[in-house]
Amino acid sequence: MSKIVLGDNQYGKSETHVVRVTRQGARHEIKDLNVSVALAGDFSDTHLTGDNSKVLPTDTQKNTVFAFAHDGVGEIEDFAIRLARHFVSEFAPVYRARVHVEEFGWQRIHDHAFVRAGTEKRLAMVTCSDDGTWVVAGVSDLVVLKSTGSEFHGYIKDRYTTLPETHDRIMATSLTARWRFHDAQADWARSYAEVRRLLLDTFAAKHSLSLQQTLYAMGAAVLEARPEVVEVRISMPNKHHFVVDLSPFGLENPNEVFYASDRPYGQIEGAVSREDAPDAGLAW
Amino acid sequence: MSKIVLGDNQYGKSETHVVRVTRQGARHEIKDLNVSVALAGDFSDTHLTGDNSKVLPTDTQKNTVFAFAHDGVGEIEDFAIRLARHFVSEFAPVYRARVHVEEFGWQRIHDHAFVRAGTEKRLAMVTCSDDGTWVVAGVSDLVVLKSTGSEFHGYIKDRYTTLPETHDRIMATSLTARWRFHDAQADWARSYAEVRRLLLDTFAAKHSLSLQQTLYAMGAAVLEARPEVVEVRISMPNKHHFVVDLSPFGLENPNEVFYASDRPYGQIEGAVSREDAPDAGLAW
Amino acid sequence: MSKIVLGDNQYGKSETHVVRVTRQGARHEIKDLNVSVALAGDFSDTHLTGDNSKVLPTDTQKNTVFAFAHDGVGEIEDFAIRLARHFVSEFAPVYRARVHVEEFGWQRIHDHAFVRAGTEKRLAMVTCSDDGTWVVAGVSDLVVLKSTGSEFHGYIKDRYTTLPETHDRIMATSLTARWRFHDAQADWARSYAEVRRLLLDTFAAKHSLSLQQTLYAMGAAVLEARPEVVEVRISMPNKHHFVVDLSPFGLENPNEVFYASDRPYGQIEGAVSREDAPDAGLAW
Amino acid sequence: MSKIVLGDNQYGKSETHVVRVTRQGARHEIKDLNVSVALAGDFSDTHLTGDNSKVLPTDTQKNTVFAFAHDGVGEIEDFAIRLARHFVSEFAPVYRARVHVEEFGWQRIHDHAFVRAGTEKRLAMVTCSDDGTWVVAGVSDLVVLKSTGSEFHGYIKDRYTTLPETHDRIMATSLTARWRFHDAQADWARSYAEVRRLLLDTFAAKHSLSLQQTLYAMGAAVLEARPEVVEVRISMPNKHHFVVDLSPFGLENPNEVFYASDRPYGQIEGAVSREDAPDAGLAW
Repeated sequence: MSKIVLGDNQYGKSETHVVRVTRQGARHEIKDLNVSVALAGDFSDTHLTGDNSKVLPTDTQKNTVFAFAHDGVGEIEDFAIRLARHFVSEFAPVYRARVHVEEFGWQRIHDHAFVRAGTEKRLAMVTCSDDGTWVVAGVSDLVVLKSTGSEFHGYIKDRYTTLPETHDRIMATSLTARWRFHDAQADWARSYAEVRRLLLDTFAAKHSLSLQQTLYAMGAAVLEARPEVVEVRISMPNKHHFVVDLSPFGLENPNEVFYASDRPYGQIEGAVSREDAPDAGLAW
Repeated sequence: MSKIVLGDNQYGKSETHVVRVTRQGARHEIKDLNVSVALAGDFSDTHLTGDNSKVLPTDTQKNTVFAFAHDGVGEIEDFAIRLARHFVSEFAPVYRARVHVEEFGWQRIHDHAFVRAGTEKRLAMVTCSDDGTWVVAGVSDLVVLKSTGSEFHGYIKDRYTTLPETHDRIMATSLTARWRFHDAQADWARSYAEVRRLLLDTFAAKHSLSLQQTLYAMGAAVLEARPEVVEVRISMPNKHHFVVDLSPFGLENPNEVFYASDRPYGQIEGAVSREDAPDAGLAW
Repeated sequence: MSKIVLGDNQYGKSETHVVRVTRQGARHEIKDLNVSVALAGDFSDTHLTGDNSKVLPTDTQKNTVFAFAHDGVGEIEDFAIRLARHFVSEFAPVYRARVHVEEFGWQRIHDHAFVRAGTEKRLAMVTCSDDGTWVVAGVSDLVVLKSTGSEFHGYIKDRYTTLPETHDRIMATSLTARWRFHDAQADWARSYAEVRRLLLDTFAAKHSLSLQQTLYAMGAAVLEARPEVVEVRISMPNKHHFVVDLSPFGLENPNEVFYASDRPYGQIEGAVSREDAPDAGLAW
Repeated sequence: MSKIVLGDNQYGKSETHVVRVTRQGARHEIKDLNVSVALAGDFSDTHLTGDNSKVLPTDTQKNTVFAFAHDGVGEIEDFAIRLARHFVSEFAPVYRARVHVEEFGWQRIHDHAFVRAGTEKRLAMVTCSDDGTWVVAGVSDLVVLKSTGSEFHGYIKDRYTTLPETHDRIMATSLTARWRFHDAQADWARSYAEVRRLLLDTFAAKHSLSLQQTLYAMGAAVLEARPEVVEVRISMPNKHHFVVDLSPFGLENPNEVFYASDRPYGQIEGAVSREDAPDAGLAW
């Protein structure tokens, strides 16, 4: 029988949940992060013989996250860059380090008290190797709905088609968007705020003939306005809201009463990029 | 062997997820509700023989929720009252109807577009019988954190004690609070906004020697300021944030770097009420 | 304004997840438990002034769970009894201790290796006070389905009725059942196995005219066969499986292709007990 | 500014939950599937202009799943092949169709009644294009634990290392494994049963010096015994079980009492393949 070989592999510590408090007198700032590390490199030995001499334990990776948080977090892109570079530069067997950060938002209600702000998470994903650093930012669980301004018609009909065409429907999704930067330097905070605003504004204002059209418009709006971004990848589950048939009760329903369905759902995924974007390398 | 008898029972349709759009020209309003109905009454026959002649199907309950939404939702307490009274008054076998409503908040970003506002849900629970109507409002999944202003010491020590006393810790919880009204008439929207504000303000500003003290202060603050409320029940899981020991790395950690733990968690539950509160009846 | 008073309250450590390995030579046994403790008693001081001198920290409760596991777990009812009695007998302010245990099942695949056995959890809930000990056992997340042998007709019709009557449907549920014992002594392991078997057998074999009829039959079957049990409480969400209308595609569907719906769902709850059951006291 | 272009994209209906009952007299069989479809192809128009003339609605994809289930499901690999080929062959704009199926297991308790069998799901992922058909099978949520036979030592130590080396620990994971077939023809049912058995046996019996070693051994065991499989990809979160320090209570803990931690967790991912495996093409 044919020879058996080890293929792609990586390992790391996932979901180290660190909260960093910064005290400026009575006024505190907090950063609330969920950090995941994944390392790839020369790890054949541990797979083949259990020799761990090139393995940095995931427990140590967790400790490193905490220790780096001691020096301050700053923007999550910078924090992820510092961590990823550490793993690549300090440990020869590590060829590629990838650090994912999810940041939970908090709204201030007092000098040192906060309430969770929204379901959404801000994301950073940084990949480092000896050849470079790739930065991707993002947002997930950003739930949006528009109650009109969305149509869907003119599609293929076949023997299994029952969906009626519509010129007015609810469009709702739980948006995940990730965007790749030209290089590893940007005003991360401002960029995030602006990209988020562009995504929301386009979703809201762009009249939609399909989720795909909305997805493309959202990505294009970001690329048109933000030169630091070279590619946007968006995932938009179509959270269906069906018009309830009230006619059995003698009632009309001109798009007023909807049933929000859980499953199944449409899933729309797409990338929008600059034609001259630098190669994605290890970014994704 | 002893005779076997049917005890307490109820049934109903849970989690009918209805979205109601109100169109005022180009500007839309949305109400996003998860509605659960539970009926109790003379239902021995269906249990003992399968005779369903006194059973209102849960499917019909769902239809009723949609049909009532057609007439407009208004505040969720009023919507729940209308529904609960319908089931009690229309169907002789129904002795008690209870309607739970969870409302998801949306923040406007456009005339007809919205983004989900926070993790929290506004709650209403209305119970009707021939003897009266009981209204409970509430909030759940309201995640709050204070980064100082919380102590814990002076507790019992025994042979299993390892917890060090602290004079400064993070206090964080995912708050669920429910409050009972004196009667079935109030300015629900204003009451909700004020109770929510009082809960948050007290959590934030009250120096805490225990979660129990904070819980009691939150309930008392509501009762002191809101005459329409006669009882507050609060559940506060203690979402532990442990100070990370950075000393192995030669670093000090003066309450700056915390590890947010999932499980186990403390669970603190308590009621605060007026001494002269009317009997709770079927409210809970 | 009226005087404000503290009402019912309790606190404790929830979800201490302990795994106990017992080594008998090469052959191991494991017990995998999620343990929650709740204490009620003389806790006014901590609520009113933050004086914690009567408070046993939840951290100590967690330690106690681990320390008691050191002595062996045995059946979860016995483990919960030992823990609950400890808290009541050792700490004067504690009037009532309640211990919930969820046990996850594992199936042996090797002397010391196991695979998780099913979605279901075995439950024990023990309440102790100076006046006695109450034991409730149970099962949750026991997902069952019968593909025929279930009807639903003869129910109330009103203006909101659209559900067609059926003489053959799928009946599916995620069963939660809890049963109260006559006293705090029984062969817990055998009792659990037999009650579980009786619940499943009755669900499967009893022709059903309503979920309520099935629920009652399941409870009655347990009470008829198991003298140590005096009351059974059952919760059965009706996990709807709708026959898909294939007629637009020229296909018949004689109850062969179903769509499994998530929400909304019917929720059926009921208790079945012996007429001469001892008072439930603090059991629930 | 640079030109903006559409990149990779796909869309489809996710999580159509279909239950297929096959009646052979009184004895029924059930298949319980969660089916997701994703199509890629010539979909620029809908993205750029909202012209949907090449779009097969996800609603129609859902209907197709139900209609195909009418003809019988068989093994999920075959069902996915039939569906994927349909979408590619019937609709010219579709270049690639991918069908994911999750199958939930049920254990018979009666001629027509069943109880859910385990937390695990059987998986099939089939990708079709004009150039071929790729079949990947798998299992997810297969939770396994070994209470000894696992060591971890000899790893890199640095300034952030605090983990003690161990020669005896619990190893537990929630396994996800996917394996690629040489071609689109195999005895799927038998192959699945054998691969699952090999994965479990190797996890149980192979003495482990690292999760990576176990992962590789599991993949290699499959490849050595199953000629129809050419590549195995495994993801193994390290569900940490920490030995509880009972020394403060004067108790020894020779690997008997463990605390099962939720987060953070190690995440180990790797591929094992035949050196002469055919190119993966569009399989993953």
